[in-house]
Amino acid sequence: MKTEIRLAGTGGQGVILASVILAEAAGVHEGRFVVQTQSYGPEARGGASRADLIIADEPILYPKCRKLDVLVCLSQLAAEKYLDDLKVRGTAVIDSFYVRECPREGAICVPMTETARAELGRELFTNIVMLGVLAQITRAVKLESLEKAVANRAPAKTLELNKKALALGWQLGMSRGSKG
Amino acid sequence: MKTEIRLAGTGGQGVILASVILAEAAGVHEGRFVVQTQSYGPEARGGASRADLIIADEPILYPKCRKLDVLVCLSQLAAEKYLDDLKVRGTAVIDSFYVRECPREGAICVPMTETARAELGRELFTNIVMLGVLAQITRAVKLESLEKAVANRAPAKTLELNKKALALGWQLGMSRGSKG
Repeated sequence: MKTEIRLAGTGGQGVILASVILAEAAGVHEGRFVVQTQSYGPEARGGASRADLIIADEPILYPKCRKLDVLVCLSQLAAEKYLDDLKVRGTAVIDSFYVRECPREGAICVPMTETARAELGRELFTNIVMLGVLAQITRAVKLESLEKAVANRAPAKTLELNKKALALGWQLGMSRGSKG
Repeated sequence: MKTEIRLAGTGGQGVILASVILAEAAGVHEGRFVVQTQSYGPEARGGASRADLIIADEPILYPKCRKLDVLVCLSQLAAEKYLDDLKVRGTAVIDSFYVRECPREGAICVPMTETARAELGRELFTNIVMLGVLAQITRAVKLESLEKAVANRAPAKTLELNKKALALGWQLGMSRGSKG
């Protein structure tokens, strides 16, 4: 059992922190094998940001994602650039605010940014909302493992809001659980 | 020009955050090619924590570190486990508080933890002190790029202390610049 996941967006949306949290949830709190990678190239200057994870039940020999099982896009650019890397039956989760035109049928459009703004008052929490959505839709990691990892990484000052963000994401994922 | 770096310690010492900051410094602020990886396996449960980076001037085809140019160890276990992965002429930077017995001649022992405690009042800043030391000793990344990346990743509340940690590390590196 191996799941290849990419989180992609723009610098400042927190996809890298989210991927570190997700990796800790699966690796530290579930004892699974995880490789989590960030690559920076010339495109990083343009503000594009992405992180890849492989979560597996046995050691991971090749640490690079090949065909994605799960792709989350928080920006239009990310959707345009990476949807081709998704498996035919892969799961695409798309932010309905920043991705106005989704170039793939069957993608799951979720109001992650809107939810962070409306329910938590700050777009900053979008990445944690995203983790809740992801966990619910893909079951790549347990909610309780994410809760522990969020508690470990979130600043004490915003811990309660981060917990709420995760729970809101989980709920959002439930209502959007079917593709299309 | 390619530099392979590993930061290793115990969970809670902040090596993963440090590696994300280092990757952003080189990748985003210097426009270089960077791959930054965390791997979790059964050993993560015991609290071991490590992150690898490759910083290069051209695209990185193989994303896994093979022989390290630079190894920073913040724990005895890390030193015992990883010093063999260092190139013969590689640079080992060792925390003089947590690594009581350094199994390699020529390693650079630096009081990173002690400095964080004594000068900043909290061991929490050891990872940022480490980045300053690393930048000074290895020149893998410019201090000003690290300053930008720290400013981007540090919580507003502790930004000044983090900046000070970086500067202290840089100074520490100067006085320990020669191996042995």
